[in-house]
Amino acid sequence: MLDKTCFLKENEVLNDLLGYDGLKIIQHPDMFNFSLDSTLLGNYATLNKNAYKIVDLCTGNAPVPLFLSLRSPKIEITGVEIQDVSYDLATRNVAVNGLENRIKIVHGDLKGIHEKIGKSTYDVVTCNPPYFKVNQDSNLNKNDYLTIARHEVLATLDDVVQEASLLLKQGGRFAMVHRPDRLIDIIETFKKYRIEPKRMRLVYPRINREANVLLIEGIKGGKPGNLRIENPLFVYENETSVNYSREILDLFMLGKKEEASQ
Amino acid sequence: MLDKTCFLKENEVLNDLLGYDGLKIIQHPDMFNFSLDSTLLGNYATLNKNAYKIVDLCTGNAPVPLFLSLRSPKIEITGVEIQDVSYDLATRNVAVNGLENRIKIVHGDLKGIHEKIGKSTYDVVTCNPPYFKVNQDSNLNKNDYLTIARHEVLATLDDVVQEASLLLKQGGRFAMVHRPDRLIDIIETFKKYRIEPKRMRLVYPRINREANVLLIEGIKGGKPGNLRIENPLFVYENETSVNYSREILDLFMLGKKEEASQ
Repeated sequence: MLDKTCFLKENEVLNDLLGYDGLKIIQHPDMFNFSLDSTLLGNYATLNKNAYKIVDLCTGNAPVPLFLSLRSPKIEITGVEIQDVSYDLATRNVAVNGLENRIKIVHGDLKGIHEKIGKSTYDVVTCNPPYFKVNQDSNLNKNDYLTIARHEVLATLDDVVQEASLLLKQGGRFAMVHRPDRLIDIIETFKKYRIEPKRMRLVYPRINREANVLLIEGIKGGKPGNLRIENPLFVYENETSVNYSREILDLFMLGKKEEASQ
Repeated sequence: MLDKTCFLKENEVLNDLLGYDGLKIIQHPDMFNFSLDSTLLGNYATLNKNAYKIVDLCTGNAPVPLFLSLRSPKIEITGVEIQDVSYDLATRNVAVNGLENRIKIVHGDLKGIHEKIGKSTYDVVTCNPPYFKVNQDSNLNKNDYLTIARHEVLATLDDVVQEASLLLKQGGRFAMVHRPDRLIDIIETFKKYRIEPKRMRLVYPRINREANVLLIEGIKGGKPGNLRIENPLFVYENETSVNYSREILDLFMLGKKEEASQ
């Protein structure tokens, strides 16, 4: 069997992609590592029978493409990443899992990427974008790796949604994870680029806490109306427990479950 | 003691306003009676120390003014109602509770009501509006009492939010209860009339079900950003129980609790 650690560079670690033994992910402790948010997004996007071609914007070290690849054997995913270090990690993460025939990583700016990879040709676009606005008084090192991953330095919400809309076919779906405090912005930007929000789910840390993660999906050129706000997702099992909820535990085992059912 | 039943007309009943023995509400079994939604709205609107003057649009038989009156002794509330039968019920509901000095019911169309009761003069506006759009193919009797209460026959979402904005002072708050499937519309309409959404709460029948009620509050001329999505409210205590949740039970006893703490 191939020694997967040969894919590693200095200071990097090879982790299981959550509970799924078959998938590995290379991470760097000092970098932006895959998070619960990527896991949630990879599980949230609708993959119906017509979904073949997918783009994941702001793909980082490619957790969302890896998760999506578990959910359907027929989909092909293009991950887009602008930062050198992440692009390098993403490419090796595809290789270490032997998924080169299904996941392609493109190194470049998402703004205008449709000119390179195809306009109005995708069934699904996903994105876990930078969450934080950059204000005049944000005291940020705009060349810093983590700053770029977390703040709207190289891509704003507007850039992301505009590009998603350009990449999608009519009737294609855009799924995004973001923060609830940006919901108004998000809805206005979706509407601006003719993506009609159709499903939304709120993630609350606990039953007695404010939502801190928002999952939202819209349809390009969709008819306005009939938004569904799905059942809430709780990260912890009750008001005080340090144990994850049943649903989060199930999500971590996503790969195992789908494997078992095949 | 005054015999409160003397306020009743034929076929009407005198109910307790939920768990609060002190407040009564006259209802007509064939009419649009006060619902959980009114209770939720009456409890949701922010009443801070500067909130004195309040308008409740689409007041019906005045459940929201009655609930609000319990929450603060200093507030004055104007209820606006267009339908004759509801206006008549609302007026007697104020009288039967001896609240004529704090609640005034105005009979008229909410559209343009600021010309009669004052522009930019209110601290808070509340509304439990008709929820359903009227389409060309809606087969409705547009003179029917219940149709008018439930469908946007005499007032649309746009009418309601526009009028709320005209009534409010800068910095005043508009609180509304509506359905989650109209969220996109609601946010666009709030923004159109410069009411910035600041708080939102979703009501789910059960922990495993989609949201079916939306509570939302915005500030006139508020700075964009920082929407809070508050902890979820569940109507029933778990996935299958027919018992109300603790919070709903507490809400029903709102009056009793505030009375006990005085």
